[in-house]
Amino acid sequence: MTDARLSLLDRFQASRKHSTNLIRDLSPEDCQAQSMDDASPAKWHLAHVTWFYEVMVLKQFEPSFKFWNPHYAVLFNSYYNGVGDRHPRPKRGLLTRPSLTEVLEWRRDIDRRITTLLTSAHVPDCAWLIELGINHEQQHQELLLTDIQHLFFNNSLYPAYSTLNRLSTVKTQFAWIVGESGLHEVGYTGQDFHFDNESPRHTTFLQPHSLSNTLIKNHEWLAFIQSGGYRQSRWWLDEGWAWVQRENIIAPLYWISSDDSSVPSCFSLTGNQPLEPEAPVTNISFFEADAFARWASESVGHYAGARLPTEFEWEVFAKTQRQYAHSLFGEVWQWTSSPYSPYPGYQPWGGIAGEYNGKFMVNQMVLRGSSAYTTAEHSRTSYRNFFPTHARWQMTGLRLAKDGS
Amino acid sequence: MTDARLSLLDRFQASRKHSTNLIRDLSPEDCQAQSMDDASPAKWHLAHVTWFYEVMVLKQFEPSFKFWNPHYAVLFNSYYNGVGDRHPRPKRGLLTRPSLTEVLEWRRDIDRRITTLLTSAHVPDCAWLIELGINHEQQHQELLLTDIQHLFFNNSLYPAYSTLNRLSTVKTQFAWIVGESGLHEVGYTGQDFHFDNESPRHTTFLQPHSLSNTLIKNHEWLAFIQSGGYRQSRWWLDEGWAWVQRENIIAPLYWISSDDSSVPSCFSLTGNQPLEPEAPVTNISFFEADAFARWASESVGHYAGARLPTEFEWEVFAKTQRQYAHSLFGEVWQWTSSPYSPYPGYQPWGGIAGEYNGKFMVNQMVLRGSSAYTTAEHSRTSYRNFFPTHARWQMTGLRLAKDGS
Amino acid sequence: MTDARLSLLDRFQASRKHSTNLIRDLSPEDCQAQSMDDASPAKWHLAHVTWFYEVMVLKQFEPSFKFWNPHYAVLFNSYYNGVGDRHPRPKRGLLTRPSLTEVLEWRRDIDRRITTLLTSAHVPDCAWLIELGINHEQQHQELLLTDIQHLFFNNSLYPAYSTLNRLSTVKTQFAWIVGESGLHEVGYTGQDFHFDNESPRHTTFLQPHSLSNTLIKNHEWLAFIQSGGYRQSRWWLDEGWAWVQRENIIAPLYWISSDDSSVPSCFSLTGNQPLEPEAPVTNISFFEADAFARWASESVGHYAGARLPTEFEWEVFAKTQRQYAHSLFGEVWQWTSSPYSPYPGYQPWGGIAGEYNGKFMVNQMVLRGSSAYTTAEHSRTSYRNFFPTHARWQMTGLRLAKDGS
Amino acid sequence: MTDARLSLLDRFQASRKHSTNLIRDLSPEDCQAQSMDDASPAKWHLAHVTWFYEVMVLKQFEPSFKFWNPHYAVLFNSYYNGVGDRHPRPKRGLLTRPSLTEVLEWRRDIDRRITTLLTSAHVPDCAWLIELGINHEQQHQELLLTDIQHLFFNNSLYPAYSTLNRLSTVKTQFAWIVGESGLHEVGYTGQDFHFDNESPRHTTFLQPHSLSNTLIKNHEWLAFIQSGGYRQSRWWLDEGWAWVQRENIIAPLYWISSDDSSVPSCFSLTGNQPLEPEAPVTNISFFEADAFARWASESVGHYAGARLPTEFEWEVFAKTQRQYAHSLFGEVWQWTSSPYSPYPGYQPWGGIAGEYNGKFMVNQMVLRGSSAYTTAEHSRTSYRNFFPTHARWQMTGLRLAKDGS
Repeated sequence: MTDARLSLLDRFQASRKHSTNLIRDLSPEDCQAQSMDDASPAKWHLAHVTWFYEVMVLKQFEPSFKFWNPHYAVLFNSYYNGVGDRHPRPKRGLLTRPSLTEVLEWRRDIDRRITTLLTSAHVPDCAWLIELGINHEQQHQELLLTDIQHLFFNNSLYPAYSTLNRLSTVKTQFAWIVGESGLHEVGYTGQDFHFDNESPRHTTFLQPHSLSNTLIKNHEWLAFIQSGGYRQSRWWLDEGWAWVQRENIIAPLYWISSDDSSVPSCFSLTGNQPLEPEAPVTNISFFEADAFARWASESVGHYAGARLPTEFEWEVFAKTQRQYAHSLFGEVWQWTSSPYSPYPGYQPWGGIAGEYNGKFMVNQMVLRGSSAYTTAEHSRTSYRNFFPTHARWQMTGLRLAKDGS
Repeated sequence: MTDARLSLLDRFQASRKHSTNLIRDLSPEDCQAQSMDDASPAKWHLAHVTWFYEVMVLKQFEPSFKFWNPHYAVLFNSYYNGVGDRHPRPKRGLLTRPSLTEVLEWRRDIDRRITTLLTSAHVPDCAWLIELGINHEQQHQELLLTDIQHLFFNNSLYPAYSTLNRLSTVKTQFAWIVGESGLHEVGYTGQDFHFDNESPRHTTFLQPHSLSNTLIKNHEWLAFIQSGGYRQSRWWLDEGWAWVQRENIIAPLYWISSDDSSVPSCFSLTGNQPLEPEAPVTNISFFEADAFARWASESVGHYAGARLPTEFEWEVFAKTQRQYAHSLFGEVWQWTSSPYSPYPGYQPWGGIAGEYNGKFMVNQMVLRGSSAYTTAEHSRTSYRNFFPTHARWQMTGLRLAKDGS
Repeated sequence: MTDARLSLLDRFQASRKHSTNLIRDLSPEDCQAQSMDDASPAKWHLAHVTWFYEVMVLKQFEPSFKFWNPHYAVLFNSYYNGVGDRHPRPKRGLLTRPSLTEVLEWRRDIDRRITTLLTSAHVPDCAWLIELGINHEQQHQELLLTDIQHLFFNNSLYPAYSTLNRLSTVKTQFAWIVGESGLHEVGYTGQDFHFDNESPRHTTFLQPHSLSNTLIKNHEWLAFIQSGGYRQSRWWLDEGWAWVQRENIIAPLYWISSDDSSVPSCFSLTGNQPLEPEAPVTNISFFEADAFARWASESVGHYAGARLPTEFEWEVFAKTQRQYAHSLFGEVWQWTSSPYSPYPGYQPWGGIAGEYNGKFMVNQMVLRGSSAYTTAEHSRTSYRNFFPTHARWQMTGLRLAKDGS
Repeated sequence: MTDARLSLLDRFQASRKHSTNLIRDLSPEDCQAQSMDDASPAKWHLAHVTWFYEVMVLKQFEPSFKFWNPHYAVLFNSYYNGVGDRHPRPKRGLLTRPSLTEVLEWRRDIDRRITTLLTSAHVPDCAWLIELGINHEQQHQELLLTDIQHLFFNNSLYPAYSTLNRLSTVKTQFAWIVGESGLHEVGYTGQDFHFDNESPRHTTFLQPHSLSNTLIKNHEWLAFIQSGGYRQSRWWLDEGWAWVQRENIIAPLYWISSDDSSVPSCFSLTGNQPLEPEAPVTNISFFEADAFARWASESVGHYAGARLPTEFEWEVFAKTQRQYAHSLFGEVWQWTSSPYSPYPGYQPWGGIAGEYNGKFMVNQMVLRGSSAYTTAEHSRTSYRNFFPTHARWQMTGLRLAKDGS
């Protein structure tokens, strides 16, 4: 068995184990509930990533393949039209059968069979699909956490998932960092796994610009609120303003106001806690990030001219200014001003993985970096995350940019 | 301890035990999920009937009362504005905490404390509230079953809750039974527990009429479908026709068509089974019952002139024709043509139980009888069940009537 | 030509003239617009009542009948499924062709042909259908006025349709009038035209009760508002309370608050005018009328025990207490506590008029009397008007009743 | 008076005259109705462009300015929050007052006053605002036509607005035209009027690419339909596929199927006419254009590799390949793959015109070119039109591109 194969097997097993670790302190009930259409039950996440290996890998490569349960192919398909029918997304929380216990049993069976496949005498050519499976499961690990947070937020008991708060609260000195303008090669380069949406690597032209060395923090957002930011149309895109009014948006998703205090508290996986002024603001929509930038540009002296960065300004910054990596990765995803579009010459993957990314490339915005909930090793400078402009149940924050130097 | 008090304690304990028996074969996940806004999770039912005893009885009568958990007073309030805040109804399925285990522990504590209250030296005047608590729990026992059936119907595995099918399939000979016309006293009379909506007993005048000795059965409904009943506007109330078209209604809720067979199958708590022609039709809305009557009146010889009975025609029939009791009670609730209105002189109960019935007396129709899911002893001739005209996840069927004799 | 026939012709011509008189001061634009799904453009009303004569009378009785324009049979059908297709109700305001001028030309042609029919040597047996046509047009005359009022209310210019305010503002002395209890014959009796929903005349039993001699007035409603009536759930039916909160209802439909004054103004066909304290309150929903009664019963000394009357209490009152006719008819329609149900033995009219009333007999409440906008001669003690419980763009008010004497 | 000023006055007067010419054959009713939220009544267009001159020009520059009617400032404001309140957009069709006659009278007054301003001894510095007013009115001239077409489509009489069909039906020979790759300056350059969204001119980098010399035509679209294009998920973006299924989209907006023929007819301002195979397809959404490109790439030999062009590929093509101008301008707007984003360094206009374009720069796609309904002189290579991805009541078609040369 080659080292590469060994390493793949190790990483496969580690990623599988990480998922089940994530639900160690959750009850079967916690893993069952679905808090909104956009979120999925934890049990569903555990099942779907398993479905992925069964349908995408085993079905193709396992001799005498048989479904563990053929109904699961429908119940746990997410959005792959090419693969067949699927259970309606808003009703994932109604799948009380199979139980969590049964799903975990299925997981173990699939783990065993993938392991057999990878350690067999004549290993089939499935390494890339296993890599995809690992990366796919890592994405769902982050979603599992954000979905549990959203679920617990809907319970006025405000339960805590964990005692560990992962966001940095270090005080930092703001500075504009001059970016590199002119022609750049952007997009993934290298030999390792990456998503199709990071390709092809191509040339782009950057105007002169600067980026902030820090993320926007809670105390800055509080100033935005206190100056009336959510009540003044002039900071908002037209569609954002309609959203703010229709949904009565007055603060980031998880800020909780009480009558006793002028400063809100903040709900997170550690429960309902006092707002930490120096922590990066999170759980804001693109509309809010964009409005904040416009407000800051006019209202905060050192942010004069501020705007959101483009995704390529961000990418070049991340590649060239590695001393700021601590705020680029592992804190909050950072909204960019770039709509999520295919790169020039983009081709979706062939075969059944073809629906992975390409069909979502419209009416969403790119986020760059990674968050405190992102699984380790699931970060890169060329990584493109994306969400619609009103979404805010993810770990989403912002960093400012401006024209010129 | 008086016999009456002893009997009350026995019945309290029996009703409490019955509820937990109902979930014996359900998993924590099964008890967690809420399949639609109108339905509630089984766990919520178990908790809410317990909340009722805690807030309505113990809080008032227990010396040194303390909430088991004060948050539960909000989480498990159903619709009592007078009692305080409540968790939003469509989000009951999101209450993963407390867990089923914790709810059952709370139940046992409340059981113990109610028992203490009823066996204490100086029993307070709470007998009627305990009676109400028992009857309230009995209502939720039926809802628990209908809600579980609806939940399982949303899972394409079509799981069975039980192996016992409770609906009669005896072939019966149809006959019109002449009803008693003229002045009648209707509404509850007697000394036992009854709901406020069955009172006051009052005089009403019945025109000459007859009632059918049997319920409408599946094979009759199949004839209605096959003759195009769901596609012809002339059988339907205007609002019913709009509902049929908007929701694409083509059969009773739980009938499942397959390509292989002209006869649908039928989902129930025993899973997906062949349609039983002689069983009473069930899970139909008022709109469907009313349309069927109009169709039968014109299309089926022996049903010429058929219509739905009024609730008082039904009540007088049930009191005077006891030989038909087997089809009146314990099979399906029977839609009447009577809107759910207060009786002349109606007064809601005083105090915190005042919101039990009265505030729902609009835009709903009365059903009479009881169903195969109704808890034993929760039936009487004066009992008034009620649902909106489109509701059909309950065990709802019909019996026909006609003018004259 | 018989006197009856002559009188019919006269009344036909008078009713036709009355409709065109109603739009004398309206522009083609005013007659075009549809302010909501429930309302229709004035032009549509003028066309639809003409369609009625063409399709219901001429098509059947006119030798060598030909449609003026066959498309109009679809465009101006309201809800008669039996007659064929129809233009979607919410899009009546988009029918800019035919123009008002063309509709009026069509009206004149139909008038001429009906006149020819009624004055021909061998008059066919169409007298009853002409009577129905006249009564039908009278109903639409009232709707035309309420729909114009609603349209003008949507324009912040608040235009006036007329200078004539028709509601009484006489100060009256309140008194309870004891009603006649026991057995009564109710429903239409006589030889003249009446709607099928007023039949058959039948026996009903009334409990002891009293009715108020007056309508509820604006100053009484103001007291209800000022005491917090719209903000306290305890006065409201559950569905009404949900409606109040969802729609943010805080006053009758046409009351307009301004910052300058604690007393609102009121919009009517005379424009935006100061609220007249002694005028009857109008444009309230059943939910509001019902909540007011419950509030008044507890909050206003002389209204202790107040509730809404049943439709038969109202009808017997109207027949036996003719000295109060001025407040029974010609002011506001009066909500009753009676759901709109068929009378015992009710049969819809045969033939194409069969869809006139019966198919609406569900989820609506009966109103009795008539309003200031009702066409003269379109009132009777047995007349049943009906609207859903949230509707309030009609001239709807209330009169109270109570149990006992 | 300078030549420039004279020319401005001439063009002002010509553009004002053109608007009233457009409604020459429309009735007051035609000008009143609003067929959907996105469309506006013709009368409203005429009034709003007049409001623009009154509020943006006269109010600022006219000595002793007085509103013609201060209410109009609210009624005819479109979306300028900075200017004050506005009448709700979906209710523009309810503004029956002022009448068309009154609006035209107001127009003449404003025309007179602008003329006075421009011919006065000391002309204020308003030339740019007048230019903006002319261009603004030109935009509404196109909208007036598309909105009338949509209105008339909602009437089953299918009235014709005009006898003139303006789309080319010339048969053309398809060819890929190699585009110029590398660095380009894009965006407006010159001294004439242009919108802020065309600026600033900036550098962009184009990959190797080719564009089609022709627009996609009806017969090609028919092939897409007949091959099942609207029923196969694989051609569609995920959001587009959901839209197709939810809205039951099966053809371009104005194609009308009949049972008699396999080829649909097509509704336009000339009424319902046989589909013209060689005319460019129009009234398609971005989702449809994008799906067509993906289908064509795989299904039509000479379109192998086809995709939509970017807006800059289109712009460079238009500047360098003027021999194809006839299909670039004056036929149909052409969807590009470019989301509508601000250009690098973009600044909205200062002052009250600042809300003109910038606040819409999200969740929309850029269209380039101009259409048969576009007012003459309202076209340029740098012009950016934009609509949401589902919009299709505009004159929207497509031209294909591909990578490489």
